[in-house]
Amino acid sequence: MPMEHKTTGAQIGRVIQLLARLPGFGPRSARRAALHLMKNRQSLLDPLARALQAAAETVRTCPECGNLDTEVPCAICASPKRRRDIICVVEDISDLWALERAGAFHGLYHVTGGVLSPIDGVTPEDLNIPALVARAAQPEVKEIILALNATVEGQTTGHYITQALRDCDVTITRLAHGVPVGGELDYLDEGTLAAALKARR
Amino acid sequence: MPMEHKTTGAQIGRVIQLLARLPGFGPRSARRAALHLMKNRQSLLDPLARALQAAAETVRTCPECGNLDTEVPCAICASPKRRRDIICVVEDISDLWALERAGAFHGLYHVTGGVLSPIDGVTPEDLNIPALVARAAQPEVKEIILALNATVEGQTTGHYITQALRDCDVTITRLAHGVPVGGELDYLDEGTLAAALKARR
Repeated sequence: MPMEHKTTGAQIGRVIQLLARLPGFGPRSARRAALHLMKNRQSLLDPLARALQAAAETVRTCPECGNLDTEVPCAICASPKRRRDIICVVEDISDLWALERAGAFHGLYHVTGGVLSPIDGVTPEDLNIPALVARAAQPEVKEIILALNATVEGQTTGHYITQALRDCDVTITRLAHGVPVGGELDYLDEGTLAAALKARR
Repeated sequence: MPMEHKTTGAQIGRVIQLLARLPGFGPRSARRAALHLMKNRQSLLDPLARALQAAAETVRTCPECGNLDTEVPCAICASPKRRRDIICVVEDISDLWALERAGAFHGLYHVTGGVLSPIDGVTPEDLNIPALVARAAQPEVKEIILALNATVEGQTTGHYITQALRDCDVTITRLAHGVPVGGELDYLDEGTLAAALKARR
């Protein structure tokens, strides 16, 4: 973006250029954010620069589950309070965070880092599935919950994992489909409604 | 946000918390951006941390015009190529950037940093208007362009500045109102259309 450099100075231009690469940001919102940062040096720019620096230096990927944390293994894997007999398989760390916010799961996680996609060249090795099989083979593990996204690729990956775990002595479960809590029926797709009806209690 | 700290680790939680304070970002988009940063350490997180650090250390407000730059005075005020007889008054640095991107103005700027607002306690001194009067009193300055936003507060501020400059030997002009280039008449408000008709050429 030579234009940015010319009009705003190289240093601010560089910040705008990098902010524009964040998801949800374009050139215009990046400019607005950069200006907001420059105007709030003490309260926002300095702390954010320090926080990013600290995160870059200390945050590591957990070799056990694939979560991000400053500790190795991560706080979840290391916690004596978590059940070690259930492993919840998620596609992405954001899914792990979402489940943790829900606060309803007290076992361990396994982050695949994506879904199988032959077209994009994503293989079981890329998804850390051999490591999951090794974890599932440990005698204390009794259940694997597949909390993959309800997309075609997510479900295909689920089938593949089920196959890969066939020699392990574990129960494989999936998240229930149904009506979102607080959701309006009118806005739901037919597939979800049919699944919710079928699984009625 | 103690919740974020608990579920994502203190370091990442701090980054999310600070990103959520950027304009256009909320907790959800901040989480997504933080995760994107952590996943792209080499290509994005490290460079952004360094760029913010460098900006925090080197970017200063120009004492002449109020622009932000690593040089003092700023590159615009220091440039021998800019006309010194015209000063364009803008509310915010983002307006200065917008005018620079347009590339149609080759004079100097004066950033007020806001508009007069008795309710919010914004006085002429807060807006750097005495400094503008001092600049306008210099013999080489011939014209002051009021490029303030076309809001009630912007126009009130414009009137105030016009009054404050009555003893200076300068011509005071305003940006023309009219149809935006590429704009469709159908989407324009009546005020703009009336102004465009009145100022027809």
